[in-house]
Amino acid sequence: MTEQDRQFMLAAIEEAKKAFALGEVPVGAVIVQDGNIIARGYNLRETHKNAAAHAELLAIHAACDTLGGWRLPRCTLYVTLEPCPMCTGAIINSRIDRVVFGAHDPKAGSCGSLVDLFALPYNHQPECEGGVLEQECATLLSDFFRQLRKKRKAGTR
Amino acid sequence: MTEQDRQFMLAAIEEAKKAFALGEVPVGAVIVQDGNIIARGYNLRETHKNAAAHAELLAIHAACDTLGGWRLPRCTLYVTLEPCPMCTGAIINSRIDRVVFGAHDPKAGSCGSLVDLFALPYNHQPECEGGVLEQECATLLSDFFRQLRKKRKAGTR
Repeated sequence: MTEQDRQFMLAAIEEAKKAFALGEVPVGAVIVQDGNIIARGYNLRETHKNAAAHAELLAIHAACDTLGGWRLPRCTLYVTLEPCPMCTGAIINSRIDRVVFGAHDPKAGSCGSLVDLFALPYNHQPECEGGVLEQECATLLSDFFRQLRKKRKAGTR
Repeated sequence: MTEQDRQFMLAAIEEAKKAFALGEVPVGAVIVQDGNIIARGYNLRETHKNAAAHAELLAIHAACDTLGGWRLPRCTLYVTLEPCPMCTGAIINSRIDRVVFGAHDPKAGSCGSLVDLFALPYNHQPECEGGVLEQECATLLSDFFRQLRKKRKAGTR
């Protein structure tokens, strides 16, 4: 993990905290091009009432708007949780060069955990590094689910 | 193939033709719940300048708007081309029950061709049937790419 990777993952964690504050599963993402954050996103599935409103997809939408095209050249996507198949596919479709994720997701992670879509012969294969600030990213998620269980038990949600 | 499947695939082909008319790769989709089309979409990647603007994802967005939630219960998605990993993942995430596609896609199809994501232990496994009106769906695509090559050769695109 480079210092740059650490800094950008901390920025993704800040995004995840925004989701947490809204009662959304806390996952956050940033997209970096040439050393600058060009897009940010956090999970808004419940707020948008849309299962496609994951942090990565919202960040990709924002990056496309910023760059004015569907290809995202020289970009790295930082995300606090290993991407699901939808987001992994969107990363391939947008030609993102590199992915850095925090916590591994054994249930739906598609960058190595349940399947490694980047290793399949699609027309683009991003580089990928997992486990960056894994503890911080995973703790945010476990805190969220602990709080949710407590609320449900108390009948307030 | 049931008569109902044939009719809904014809509706998806109508969507694909709208993409063709705009110079977009002609892929179209409809989402059916309880025998009624509740959402439609066609590929708008170039128009929206966004690699996530595939027919299936746009139809899923529309269906979420119609139903007012991120789960799409009792729904079948009809699409003229085998979904890519992004769209296959979005189908899983939205809990769509069944997918019917037309042409197989050996390069990126993720419902059996390059990989079968529905056979992996994600938390939802839709049923899937491919090859419905395959010839009609594939011809639309080959006509589009033939026309594109001709235009490029003539230097008009």
